[in-house]
Amino acid sequence: MLTLSFPLLPKPHLFSHLLRRLSTTTAAAKPSMDAAEETLRRSLAARTAAVAAQATAVRDLKTAKATSADIAAAVEALNALKLDAAAAERELLAAVSGGAGDANGGAGMSREAFRQAVVNTLERRLFYIPSFKIYRGVAGFYDYGPPGCAVKSNVLAFWRQHFVLEEDMLEVDCPSVTPEIVLKASGHVDKFTDLMVKDEKTGTCYRADHLLKDFCKEKLEKDLSLPVEKVTELRHILAVLDDLSAEELGAKIKEYGITAPDTKNPLSDPYPFNLMFQTSIGPSGLSPGFMRPETAQGIFVNFKDLYYYNGNKLPFAAAQIGQAFRNEISPRQGLLRVREFTLAEIEHFVDSDDKSHPKFGNVSNLEFLMFPREKQTSGEKATKLRLGEAVEKGIVNNQTLGYFIGRVYLFLTHLGIDKDRLRFRQHLANEMAHYACDCWDAEIESSYGWIECVGIADRSAYDLHAHTEKSGVALVAHEKFSEPREVEKLVIAPVKKEIGLTFKGNQKKVVEALEAMSEKEAIEMKAALESKGEVEFQVCTLGQNVTIKSNMLSISKEKKKEHQRVFTPSVIEPSFGIGRIIYCLFEHSFYMRPSKAGDEQLNVFSFPPLVAPIKCTVFPLVQNQQYEEVAQQISKALKASGISHKIDITGTSIGKRYARTDELGVPFAITVDSTTSVTIRERDSKDQIRVSVEEVASVVKEVTDGQSTWADVQWRYPAHSSFSADE
Amino acid sequence: MLTLSFPLLPKPHLFSHLLRRLSTTTAAAKPSMDAAEETLRRSLAARTAAVAAQATAVRDLKTAKATSADIAAAVEALNALKLDAAAAERELLAAVSGGAGDANGGAGMSREAFRQAVVNTLERRLFYIPSFKIYRGVAGFYDYGPPGCAVKSNVLAFWRQHFVLEEDMLEVDCPSVTPEIVLKASGHVDKFTDLMVKDEKTGTCYRADHLLKDFCKEKLEKDLSLPVEKVTELRHILAVLDDLSAEELGAKIKEYGITAPDTKNPLSDPYPFNLMFQTSIGPSGLSPGFMRPETAQGIFVNFKDLYYYNGNKLPFAAAQIGQAFRNEISPRQGLLRVREFTLAEIEHFVDSDDKSHPKFGNVSNLEFLMFPREKQTSGEKATKLRLGEAVEKGIVNNQTLGYFIGRVYLFLTHLGIDKDRLRFRQHLANEMAHYACDCWDAEIESSYGWIECVGIADRSAYDLHAHTEKSGVALVAHEKFSEPREVEKLVIAPVKKEIGLTFKGNQKKVVEALEAMSEKEAIEMKAALESKGEVEFQVCTLGQNVTIKSNMLSISKEKKKEHQRVFTPSVIEPSFGIGRIIYCLFEHSFYMRPSKAGDEQLNVFSFPPLVAPIKCTVFPLVQNQQYEEVAQQISKALKASGISHKIDITGTSIGKRYARTDELGVPFAITVDSTTSVTIRERDSKDQIRVSVEEVASVVKEVTDGQSTWADVQWRYPAHSSFSADE
Repeated sequence: MLTLSFPLLPKPHLFSHLLRRLSTTTAAAKPSMDAAEETLRRSLAARTAAVAAQATAVRDLKTAKATSADIAAAVEALNALKLDAAAAERELLAAVSGGAGDANGGAGMSREAFRQAVVNTLERRLFYIPSFKIYRGVAGFYDYGPPGCAVKSNVLAFWRQHFVLEEDMLEVDCPSVTPEIVLKASGHVDKFTDLMVKDEKTGTCYRADHLLKDFCKEKLEKDLSLPVEKVTELRHILAVLDDLSAEELGAKIKEYGITAPDTKNPLSDPYPFNLMFQTSIGPSGLSPGFMRPETAQGIFVNFKDLYYYNGNKLPFAAAQIGQAFRNEISPRQGLLRVREFTLAEIEHFVDSDDKSHPKFGNVSNLEFLMFPREKQTSGEKATKLRLGEAVEKGIVNNQTLGYFIGRVYLFLTHLGIDKDRLRFRQHLANEMAHYACDCWDAEIESSYGWIECVGIADRSAYDLHAHTEKSGVALVAHEKFSEPREVEKLVIAPVKKEIGLTFKGNQKKVVEALEAMSEKEAIEMKAALESKGEVEFQVCTLGQNVTIKSNMLSISKEKKKEHQRVFTPSVIEPSFGIGRIIYCLFEHSFYMRPSKAGDEQLNVFSFPPLVAPIKCTVFPLVQNQQYEEVAQQISKALKASGISHKIDITGTSIGKRYARTDELGVPFAITVDSTTSVTIRERDSKDQIRVSVEEVASVVKEVTDGQSTWADVQWRYPAHSSFSADE
Repeated sequence: MLTLSFPLLPKPHLFSHLLRRLSTTTAAAKPSMDAAEETLRRSLAARTAAVAAQATAVRDLKTAKATSADIAAAVEALNALKLDAAAAERELLAAVSGGAGDANGGAGMSREAFRQAVVNTLERRLFYIPSFKIYRGVAGFYDYGPPGCAVKSNVLAFWRQHFVLEEDMLEVDCPSVTPEIVLKASGHVDKFTDLMVKDEKTGTCYRADHLLKDFCKEKLEKDLSLPVEKVTELRHILAVLDDLSAEELGAKIKEYGITAPDTKNPLSDPYPFNLMFQTSIGPSGLSPGFMRPETAQGIFVNFKDLYYYNGNKLPFAAAQIGQAFRNEISPRQGLLRVREFTLAEIEHFVDSDDKSHPKFGNVSNLEFLMFPREKQTSGEKATKLRLGEAVEKGIVNNQTLGYFIGRVYLFLTHLGIDKDRLRFRQHLANEMAHYACDCWDAEIESSYGWIECVGIADRSAYDLHAHTEKSGVALVAHEKFSEPREVEKLVIAPVKKEIGLTFKGNQKKVVEALEAMSEKEAIEMKAALESKGEVEFQVCTLGQNVTIKSNMLSISKEKKKEHQRVFTPSVIEPSFGIGRIIYCLFEHSFYMRPSKAGDEQLNVFSFPPLVAPIKCTVFPLVQNQQYEEVAQQISKALKASGISHKIDITGTSIGKRYARTDELGVPFAITVDSTTSVTIRERDSKDQIRVSVEEVASVVKEVTDGQSTWADVQWRYPAHSSFSADE
C-alpha cells in the first residue's frame, strides 16, 4: 500500500526531484513485483486460459454432436477448472489487498472497519473535533477536545522530560510568522512545492502524484486479469513516483487517460504549488512572510547565540515544540495529513570529525525492528537488530544518530506504541537530500499502513552553511588547540612597484586577480615562472590576458602556527510529528470487549497512566450523601497530589460508569462503597483491590507516577470481588 | 503616562468608536488635569511673568540712568526671581514626567535606566532574543531562549494546574489558521482595525493615534510654558483618544501640523487597517483565512459539543492556551506589544439568571488594590478592597466575575508579581463593548506604566448569539423544569380556505405575513377585527395592502405547558497575555546588589522556585575528581526527582559561579566541598545549610515543590558559613 507525501519532511530537499515528499511505506521503494504475487498472477492467467480452452472444447463437442456422456464429462471438467480459477483469483485478491485482515491488535476486523470504530469513538468522546464544524469545517484542520488535549499535553510533557531535561537540551520558542529571507535561505520559498493539476472546467485542484498513484493502485488491486508486464509497469511507477518530473507525471496522466475524479473532466498539465501559507508582515504590503513549515529554522538562525550560551562548546542540542503549517493541496487521511500541526524538533550540533556519543552504551543493547536500505531493495522484511550491532556494522552511520534512534524507540514505546508495529526504516538514496549522510524514519503501523512519525536525519552542515551564506553572519564553531599547530600555507605576494610600472591604471585589477588565484593555479604559475621567466595570465575583470614576469610577484609556502580550527558543525535532527504519534497511539491502544451481558461491544483505550487524559475516576456506588462526602474527600486528596480525575455522582449503574471511562482510557476507578475503605479497579484486567480511604490517593499516585505497577499494589492490598465488580 | 492600544483586547468591539484598543493606564481615563499639576503650572507661569516684569524694570532703570546701587538691587531681585522660576520649573517637570524616580523596587534608578538594566540582562542571558536577528530581525517578533522558554513553560504549567485542573475546565486546542466566515461572525473581519496614516512621500505607515498621542505627551512634558487652557485641551485629547473617529483624528493631526516622525513629510488622512494576518487556505485562492487574533473563537464554535461533553449542564468553563497574531502597524514597547503572542483564555459559560459561584467564599476575604470606575472618573487612586465587599456592594457585577478576579489575583501573586504593583481596574463605560456587563483588567505596574495583563470580562450572550446567527446552528442551553410550567402564548391561526378564496395565487404570501406578525401587531389586529370586522394589512412580499376580514384568522392566547427553558448562556472571559505577564514578572523579580568586593553591581532575578528556569545548580567547590563524582551522583538523584538543574565544573571561582546563576534566577546552589555532606545556598539571603549527600536531592525537592519553605529546612539543618560562602 502506498501513501505518498506527508507533512513530516525534515527539510525541503534542494534537488527538485528530491523535493516531493517521502513515501510512508516501503512498498514504493520495492522496485520489483513481489515474487509470490507474480506466481499467483501467472497461475491465475494460466487457469483463466485453461477455462477458455475447455469452454471452446465443450462448444466444439456440441457442434460436432458428440455423445451426451462426452459433453457432460467435458462440462464437468470445465466447472472444475472454473472453481480452480476462482480459487486462484481469491488467493491473488488477498495477496494484492495486502493483509487487510488483522493488523489491528487481534480484533479480527478489516483495517477500514477497525479505523472507523476508532475514529467514531474518538469523535464521539471529543478526543478531537473537525475544526469549525458548525461552519461545515475546512479540510485538514482538527481541534483537540478535552481528552485529546490532555493526551497531547501529557505526550509533550513526557517529550520535554525525556529529551530536553534528561539530555540537557536548550529549548527555544520562536514565532510561526517567518520573514521571506529566512525561508529563501533554507530553500523553502523556491522548492517546497507539490505538483498540482486542475480540473480544466471547474478549477478544482488535485495533487498530480495522488491521482496517478490512485489509478495505479486501483488497477493493481481490482484488475486481476492485468498482464504481468502491465503489473510490472504500474508497480514501477509507484516505486519511482517521488522522482517523476512535472513533464513525466503529465505524460503518464495523459497516457492513462486519467481525469478529474469528481467530474471526469480533463486535467491541466501538472505545475508546482508552494505549500507554505503566505502572508504579509506589517501594513506596507512590502514584507512577505510565511507561516513556518517546520520549527527547525528558528533554531538554526539562533545557532550563534545558543553556542555562546553553551559556553562555546560542542556538542549540544537545541529543541523546539511548536506549530507548523503546510497548505496541503487536498488533505486526506484524517489526522495524519493536516494543514496545521505540532512539531517537536531537536537539532543536535556536533563536530563532524567526531560523532561518537558518550551515552551510546545506555541504548546499545536495545533490540527492535530495523529496516536498512539493503533489505528494502532486496525485497526483504524489517528484522530485529541490536542497535549496538547496527552501529558497529555501519548500518547506522554513527553513534550519535544511533543514540537518538534508541532514545526515540524508548520514547515511543513508553507512550504505549506497540513495539511490534514500530520499525526504523532507513531512507533510500533517492529519498535523501544530497547533503544528508544518513536518515532513519520511525514508522508506526496503523490502519493506513506504515506511517512515518519521527524522522532522524544526519543533515551534515547544510543548514548552517545556507544561513551563513545568506545572512553574512558566520554560524561556525571553534576548536581551540591545546597547543598551537603548525600548518603550511601558500603566500602570494605581488610586487606592487613592478606591476604598477607595467600596468599603470590597470594595476589594481591585476593585483586582485593574482591574489585571488587558487592554490593549484598559483603552484602552476610558480613552476612556469621558474622555467620560462614569464607567463600569460587571464585577468577576467580586464577581459584580456596579460604577461606576468617573475619579478612581479613571489609565490612561496610558509609555515604558520594556528591556535584553533574554525568549522561549521554538522547537525543531527530528530523531528517528531506529535499529531501522527498521537493518532497511532489511539489505534494501538484501542480494543473492544463484550459487555458483561454480552449484548454489546464496549470500547477501551488502554493508555498507560503516563498518557491517559484522566488518571482516575471516583464513583459513589449508590447515590447517598455519606458516599458522596467520602468521594469529595478523596477528590480533594487527589487534587492535592496533582492527579487529574473526575467524580461521577450520577445514579447511572456502576457498569455503565466503568464503560464510559474505559472509553476515555482512564486507567483506575475508585468506587466508594463504604465510608472507611474503597475499591480501586484497573481498567484492562478489571481486577479490584480494597484500600482504606486515607491511603487511596497515595496508592493511585504511586501507580500513575510509575513508582509502582498495578501488580505491586495488587500484591500489597486485598483483592475485592463483589456484586458491583463489573457490568 | 499614556500607552494606548495593545494586543490583549478580549474581543473586537462592534461599535467602531469602541473598536480601537484599550488604554493600559488610567491616565487616559482621568478627564481633568491633576490639581497639583495645575497649581504648579500656574505658579510657574506667575514666576515667569514676574521675571519678565523685573527684567523690564531693570531695563527701564538703565534707560533712566538710575544709580548703580538701584540697578544692582534690581538685578539682584531679578536673579532671585529667576532662581525661583527655575525651581518651579524643576518641580513641574518632576510632576509631569510622572514619578520617574523609584517605581522599580527601590533601585533608585530612573524607569528607563532600570528597564535598560533588566532588558540587557534578559538579552545577554538569552531569556529572549529578537527573532531572526542574523537577518536584522523584524519588529514585533521575539524568541524565548532557553531560560525564557523554561520560565514560560513553568508559567503555563502553573496556569493549567491553577485553572484547568483545579476548576475542572475543558481544555481545547484549535488551529491558528481560521476561515474568514468565523471571524466575519465574530466581527473581526469588519472591525478589528487601527487607524493608520502614511508618509505621503515614502509610504511609511504609522498609527494615527500614536502620533497624536506622542505630540500631546511631548508638548505636555517638555513645553512648561504651555498656557493652562492648552494643557487642558491636550489632556482632553489624550483622555478621549480612543473615541476619536478617523475624521477627528485627521483634523487634529492637520491642526497641530503633525508630520512623519522620521522625514517630516506630510501625512495622509487616517484610514482603517485590519490587524489580522491574512492568508489563503488551499490552492484555489478562493478561501481566505486569517491567523486568529485570539483563541476564544475556537471555544465558541465548539460550544454545542462542549456543553454535551459536560452532560448538558451549566455552568462550565472551557480553556485554551495558544498562539494569537496581530499585525501591528508599528510595534513599540519591546516584549509588551508583539505581533505573535501566547494567550491563555477561559470562557466560563453560565446561566445569565444565576451568576452566583459556589466557591466564591474561598476568595471573598482576599484584599487587594481595586480601581472601580467611580474612583477613576473622580481622579482618586486605586485602594485596597475586600473582594467580598466589592461584590456585595455591586462594585463588581456578580460572584462569578468576582471569583475569577480573586483567582487571577492568586495566580499572579503566586508567580511572583508584587501585590503592591498589581491592581484590578474596572473598564469605563466608553471602554466596554455595548453588550458587556462589566469588565476588569488586572494591571501590573512596570517601567512602561500600568500594563493590562489579564482582562476579565462578563460578555453576556454576545458571542454565542453571533455564531448562532451566522452558522444557523443553535448554540443554546436547556434548563429542564423539575415539573412542567404553564406559560401563555399567542396563537395566530389563519383560516386557509377563506384566505385562498379571496387571495388566490397570493394566498401563501398573505398567510406567511400574518404568521410573522409580532405579538403587539397581532393584539392590535385582534382588537381592530373585533371592533370593525376588517382591517388593512400590509404584505411586504406583495408590496401592497390587503383587507383582512375576521373570518380569515383567529388570534387567541393559549396556555401551554413547557418542560424546559431554552436560552443562550452568558460567558465570563478571563483572558491572559502570557508574554506580558512574564515580562512584568521579569521586572518585578529583578534587583541588583554589590559584589562582595564592592567593585561591581550583580544582577539577580528573585524568581520563586515555581517559576525559576532551573531549580538548582551543582558546583564542585574545586576541580577534583572526587568532588565531580559526588556532583554527578547528586545530579542523578535530582534528575530522578524531576528537578531541572545544571552542573558547573569549570574552575571559575565559586563567587562568580553563584553570580552567574543568580542572574538566571536559580533559587538554590549545591556546593560540593566534601564527599559526605554538601552545602545548599539560597539565592536571595545567601544563607547556607549543610546537608548530607544522600539527603540533598530530597531537600531541594521539598523547597522547590513548595512542600517546605527555606525557613523550614534552615531550622532543620545546621547553618554553614565558610571561606567559600560567597563572592
